[in-house]
Amino acid sequence: MPIYLDHNATTPLRPEVFEAIVPFLREEYGNASSVHAFGSRARCAIEDARGGIAEVLGASAAEIIFTGGGTESNNLAIIGGARAKQCRVLASAIEHSSVLGAVEALEDEGFAVERIPTDTTGVIRVAELERALRLGPALVSIGWANNEIGTLQPVEEIASLCASHGALLHVDAVQAFGKVPVRKSGIDMLSLSAHKIGGPKGVGVLFVRQGVAVKPLLVGGGQERGHRAGSENVAAIVGMGLACQLAYAEVDWFGEASLAMRDRLWNGIRGKVSAVHRHGNSLCLPNTLNLRFDGVRGEALVAALDLEGIAVSAGSACAAGGGEPSHVLSAIGLDADTARNGVRFSIGRTNAPDEIERAISATTAAVERIRAAHGSRQR
Amino acid sequence: MPIYLDHNATTPLRPEVFEAIVPFLREEYGNASSVHAFGSRARCAIEDARGGIAEVLGASAAEIIFTGGGTESNNLAIIGGARAKQCRVLASAIEHSSVLGAVEALEDEGFAVERIPTDTTGVIRVAELERALRLGPALVSIGWANNEIGTLQPVEEIASLCASHGALLHVDAVQAFGKVPVRKSGIDMLSLSAHKIGGPKGVGVLFVRQGVAVKPLLVGGGQERGHRAGSENVAAIVGMGLACQLAYAEVDWFGEASLAMRDRLWNGIRGKVSAVHRHGNSLCLPNTLNLRFDGVRGEALVAALDLEGIAVSAGSACAAGGGEPSHVLSAIGLDADTARNGVRFSIGRTNAPDEIERAISATTAAVERIRAAHGSRQR
Repeated sequence: MPIYLDHNATTPLRPEVFEAIVPFLREEYGNASSVHAFGSRARCAIEDARGGIAEVLGASAAEIIFTGGGTESNNLAIIGGARAKQCRVLASAIEHSSVLGAVEALEDEGFAVERIPTDTTGVIRVAELERALRLGPALVSIGWANNEIGTLQPVEEIASLCASHGALLHVDAVQAFGKVPVRKSGIDMLSLSAHKIGGPKGVGVLFVRQGVAVKPLLVGGGQERGHRAGSENVAAIVGMGLACQLAYAEVDWFGEASLAMRDRLWNGIRGKVSAVHRHGNSLCLPNTLNLRFDGVRGEALVAALDLEGIAVSAGSACAAGGGEPSHVLSAIGLDADTARNGVRFSIGRTNAPDEIERAISATTAAVERIRAAHGSRQR
Repeated sequence: MPIYLDHNATTPLRPEVFEAIVPFLREEYGNASSVHAFGSRARCAIEDARGGIAEVLGASAAEIIFTGGGTESNNLAIIGGARAKQCRVLASAIEHSSVLGAVEALEDEGFAVERIPTDTTGVIRVAELERALRLGPALVSIGWANNEIGTLQPVEEIASLCASHGALLHVDAVQAFGKVPVRKSGIDMLSLSAHKIGGPKGVGVLFVRQGVAVKPLLVGGGQERGHRAGSENVAAIVGMGLACQLAYAEVDWFGEASLAMRDRLWNGIRGKVSAVHRHGNSLCLPNTLNLRFDGVRGEALVAALDLEGIAVSAGSACAAGGGEPSHVLSAIGLDADTARNGVRFSIGRTNAPDEIERAISATTAAVERIRAAHGSRQR
């Protein structure tokens, strides 16, 4: 049986969520903007989902916008927020590509932007952020948890810093939600994605605090109170609602269960393999283990484990295949060559301890094989 | 049993499509950007869908971009195309809100835009278009078929006009595809939406002819060859692929079947009800019947039929609930008061002739009731 250890890329749809969305794929097919009964039932389902997510975040329903996914949520917050506020844009250098892409797009439009450096564990240099905040009105975007190395940011500290400088704060909580407690206090905008928490692909949420202006990216029919046009994806929204509530309810359990497996994985590997290094900080997502093995390309290890039926990743899925070194590992100070050696193991609710044992053995064997082949080529 | 006659707003997911997408909601959950086996299988499914749609359109696979729906396809073509080409933007005055919204957004950005008028049947005034094309480089956006009144545009004539003036032509084929033959010859960009043709909500296609530049609206991981960032919605894309192929294969059958029911509906209603008028032209979508009954508000008739379990619409779903008169009926020359009387019946593949008979009786009775109540209030 294959072993899936790439849950930060995407995680399976939960069976309960599948059951919840099926009626909206079949009999309840109405367009939520239609005024007849078919439409009303779809509308009710959407508003139920919205209310549930609002409750989980401690927000009001009017502050929840459904989008087409995490990338769109991040783009809408940053591009839409900056266009509305006409201000400088600050993001850490280790953000997800959908954040860095938005920052770059704004730079092309003429916005002043700055990428704030992090320390070698991936924690944003708060003093640098503070210096940048003094330069004028800003929109700040940080990821609650980094998707590659799992580093958690001091969100509370950053939120009060932003508040004291009158800056807008957007937090990309796509990887954090369901793994560590996430609330929206002190935050102006917050992104979530369903398929990272057992919901379907193709749907996300952007929380936008009341009073914060965001210029829409998708325009037309005025859905989502003018924030996001397009016929609502009813089934996906229903799935997002349930997935959020389940992930919220189970965050403590999942945190403990995945932490136990993650620590076993780390201890198992470092007990058997030499010259292995771990990236990130001690305040890290409980399910995420990002390693590098000296002399072993990340891509080579991913391919070797794939042959054994074990799915892990080198860098994030969104940047995979490009052959570029991880921008996250580069940002925490690794040189380009070393940054190509990163491998991410990310644990999900479907993993069992037995799979961790098999992953330890397979990783150990694969690293040894690659190093041996590499050594023999060098001789 | 309720009768759904609002298929232009959205149409049920076909059972074959549901069966095809279920595996990608359950066991095949990989992220298509992941390089391991889970990811590869998702990638293959996406590329199969892309190839199938390309074949149906007579395009190459590299010309097919998956989006989050028809609105996003239209926005991407128009906003993304105009930002890349830096040219004037021309659209007819009866376009879908996602087209008119995009035109308005570009106008706000400083682009020169023009809304080309139509005749009283909704056909674009080609001489006006030609005059506007002489003013300089342009991007033209027209709907192959109007979503409210079903009017078909002379796409071939418009395409050669655009070609002779070096203008880019975008065609919104969301309502036309599957109802009348649609090919992409002479067209630079073409939009499709899955949920109008028996596919799932939340996915669309934009065909972009090779060599045409489009600036992306969603940026980040570089998916869809840089045109549309975000983790691919694998199940929805698989569903879109199958729905396109089925709709293409069955277009003649569906055209004939829906035309027969539509004509029966029209003849049945006008045989029983006085002072009823039909909007659109003789070259009209075979499934669409847009009427107005003197002295009867569209909203009132929609509500009355809803009580009888019959779903129809006043205007498009995307503009519903606003209480505004239909911009389409206004554009074809109706005054604001009269434009509030439009009602759209749109037939789908799940309708049976028996339902048409019941709709005729119910509509007749509802119109009489509303007129009687209105008359008694006036006395």
